[in-house]
Amino acid sequence: MSVTTPPAPFTAEDYRARMDRAAAEAADAGLAGILVAPGPDLVHLTGYQPTATTERLTVLVLAAGREPVLVVPTLEAPDAEQAPGAAALTVRDWTDGRDPYAVTAPLLDAGTGARFGVSDNTWALHLLGLQKALPATSYVSLTEALPMLRAVKDARELERIAAAGAAADEAYREILTVRFEGRRETEVAADLAAALMRFGHSQVDFTVVGSGPNGANPHHEAGERVIERGDMVVLDFGGLKHGYGSDTTRTVHVGEPTDEERRVHDLVREAQQAGFEAVRPGVACQEVDRAARKVITDAGYGAYFIHRTGHGIGVTTHEPPYMIEGEERPIVPGMCFSVEPGVYLPGRFGVRIEDIVTATEDGGGLRFNNTPREMAIVE
Amino acid sequence: MSVTTPPAPFTAEDYRARMDRAAAEAADAGLAGILVAPGPDLVHLTGYQPTATTERLTVLVLAAGREPVLVVPTLEAPDAEQAPGAAALTVRDWTDGRDPYAVTAPLLDAGTGARFGVSDNTWALHLLGLQKALPATSYVSLTEALPMLRAVKDARELERIAAAGAAADEAYREILTVRFEGRRETEVAADLAAALMRFGHSQVDFTVVGSGPNGANPHHEAGERVIERGDMVVLDFGGLKHGYGSDTTRTVHVGEPTDEERRVHDLVREAQQAGFEAVRPGVACQEVDRAARKVITDAGYGAYFIHRTGHGIGVTTHEPPYMIEGEERPIVPGMCFSVEPGVYLPGRFGVRIEDIVTATEDGGGLRFNNTPREMAIVE
Repeated sequence: MSVTTPPAPFTAEDYRARMDRAAAEAADAGLAGILVAPGPDLVHLTGYQPTATTERLTVLVLAAGREPVLVVPTLEAPDAEQAPGAAALTVRDWTDGRDPYAVTAPLLDAGTGARFGVSDNTWALHLLGLQKALPATSYVSLTEALPMLRAVKDARELERIAAAGAAADEAYREILTVRFEGRRETEVAADLAAALMRFGHSQVDFTVVGSGPNGANPHHEAGERVIERGDMVVLDFGGLKHGYGSDTTRTVHVGEPTDEERRVHDLVREAQQAGFEAVRPGVACQEVDRAARKVITDAGYGAYFIHRTGHGIGVTTHEPPYMIEGEERPIVPGMCFSVEPGVYLPGRFGVRIEDIVTATEDGGGLRFNNTPREMAIVE
Repeated sequence: MSVTTPPAPFTAEDYRARMDRAAAEAADAGLAGILVAPGPDLVHLTGYQPTATTERLTVLVLAAGREPVLVVPTLEAPDAEQAPGAAALTVRDWTDGRDPYAVTAPLLDAGTGARFGVSDNTWALHLLGLQKALPATSYVSLTEALPMLRAVKDARELERIAAAGAAADEAYREILTVRFEGRRETEVAADLAAALMRFGHSQVDFTVVGSGPNGANPHHEAGERVIERGDMVVLDFGGLKHGYGSDTTRTVHVGEPTDEERRVHDLVREAQQAGFEAVRPGVACQEVDRAARKVITDAGYGAYFIHRTGHGIGVTTHEPPYMIEGEERPIVPGMCFSVEPGVYLPGRFGVRIEDIVTATEDGGGLRFNNTPREMAIVE
C-alpha cells in the first residue's frame, strides 16, 4: 500500500477564478448567465455539495460582471457558508413556504429573450419553475452551451487525476493475486472496492466483474454468478480520490484462454492502442472513436462494439468530452478521458480495455493507467 | 437484534396496476401522458433503477390506453429487461450516437398543446431535449400535476414502512447505550449507521448528530466536534429497509439538563404531540403544521422553528405530501409522513422530535416510531 501526501486543498481564489471563467465563457456564448444546481458543476465551481439533492431549490447564479450568488434553503445556509468557495460568492437564503423562483428571478438579468445555461442535472421541477417565473427567458443545457466548461484540467487537477489512476492501477495489481475460480462476481467486486479504498479512494462508483457471458453486457455490474475456470472476466472499476475520478478496465482470463478468446483480446488491445495513438491536441474527439473502431470493424467485429470509445473524467467519472462519432470539437491539452473499446459476443464473453488519458502540450497522449494491457491469467 | 422475514417481492402485476393508475390519473388531470426518468417514481412504477443516472436518456412513457414503454440506452437494455416490472411494459432501446429525443417523440401523443407530466428529478438536459424535439408540447412537474401519485400507500407498502420504523426504533434504543461524552459526532453517527444496517436497512440516508451549538443547524449532519457533558444532542437518522424509508429524531442530553433545556424540550414534545393529534383523514396537510407551530409560537419561540413540520416518506425518505402552510390538500388514509417540529437557538442548542405517522381508515393517526419522546439522559 502506498501512502501519498494529499494535494493542497483548492482555495476560494481557485473557485473565484473558475466562476469568473465560467461567467466569461457564458457571455461569449451569448448567454445572459448560467444557473448551476447541486452536482458536479457546483462542486467544480464552489466546492459546495449539499448533503442531499432535494426538491428544495439550491442554485448558483453566475453572470459576467456580477457577484456570484448561491441561492439555498434557509436551513442549509450554515453549511453553504462553510463551503470552500463561499468567500468568493454571496449566499442568499429562502425559507420553506416562500417561492424560491421568485427569490431567484431578480438575480437574473432576464430581459426578453435572455437565454441562460442551466446545469444538465438541474431538476425539471426547478427548470419548469424558472420557465414559469420568467416566461420571456429561454434555457439551454450547460453541456450544450458550454460543453467544455470542466473538460480542460489545470495542473492541480491533473495531479489529482494522475493520483486516482495510479491508485486504480495498484488496485488492479492486487486483484490479480486474489482467487477468481469458484467465487461469486460480487465477492471479487468487493475485493476491488476494498482495494480502491485502501489505495486512497473516498468513493467507489463502480466495480464491474463480468464473467463469461456476463462480460458480453457492457453495463453488467457484478452478480451472483460463480466464476468458472475458462471464463473471460471484464474488470471495470473506478471512483473518486481527492475529489477526482479513476476508471480503468482490464479483461483477464481464468486459466488458459482459447485461440478465439486470445484473438479477440488482442484485437481489442490493438484497437485501444490505435485509439490512444489518435489522441493529439487539435484532433476531433470523434477521431479517437474512429481509430479504435476501424481496427475492430476491419477484423469483422464492428457489430459487437456497441458503445462509444470514451468519455471525459474529472470531478465525476463520466462527463464531456465524449469520444464518439459526431463529436467534432478538438482535443485540447489538459482534457482527460477514457479510451475503452470493447467487443461483446452475446451469450459468450466480452473484452474491454480502458485507460484514462490526457493530451499534453507537446502534442501527444499520456496514459494515467499503466498496468499491462496484455491478457492476465488468473486462478 | 430482531430477525424478520422479508416481505414478498412486488410482482409485475403490482407494477402494472401502478402504471395503469398513474396513466388514468394523468388523463383525469388533463395530461396527454407522463414521462418518468430514473429515480423514485420509476422505482415505484417499474422497480427499475439503472446502476447510475447519467446524461443518457432513460424514460418511461405512460399514457392512458397505451402500452407503457421504457426507453433505455442499448447497453442498459439487458438490465432493464430484468426489472421487476419489465413484464408489464415494452423496452425500446437507442444506441449511442442516435438522438434519443427523436426515438421518444413518436411514443408521445403530442398534438399541439399536448401537456405532459414529467418526473421532478428528470434532468433539465432531457426536458430541454424534449421541448426542442416537440415544440408544440408543454410540461408540468409530476409533483405539481399529480402530487399524490405515490403518497397513498397500500397495505403491502405500509407493512414495509412499519418495519423500517421499527428498525429505526431499535437503532435508537441501542444508541442510548453508547458513550457520547468525549467522542466525536461522527463516531456516534457511525454507531447509528451500523445499528440501522444491523436492524435490516439496506441503505442509510442520513445520521444527524447535532451536539450543542451544532444542533441549532437543522441540516447539520455530523462533524468533528467532540461531544461534551452538558450538550443537548439531536439524533436524526433514517434510510431504506426493504425499499421503504425510515426517518426519526430524538433529542437527548449528556448528563443533567438545565431548566431552560428541559423547558424547550418539553415544548417541542408538546408541539410534536399537537401535530400528531391533528392527523386525521380529510384534514388539510397544513393543519398539522399549524397545530405544531401554534404550540411553539404561543410559547414565544416561533422565530426559532425555521422549517416545515413534515414530509412524506415511501420509496424515498423525503417526498410529498408536505406538512406546510399552504398545503391545502387533505390527508388521505395510507399517507405516510413525518411530524417533526423543532426549536433552534443559534449558537446554543437545538431540539427536534420526529415520528413517521400515517392516517388510518378509522379516522386517527398512527405512529410508526414508538420509542419514548421524553428527553433521554445519556453518558
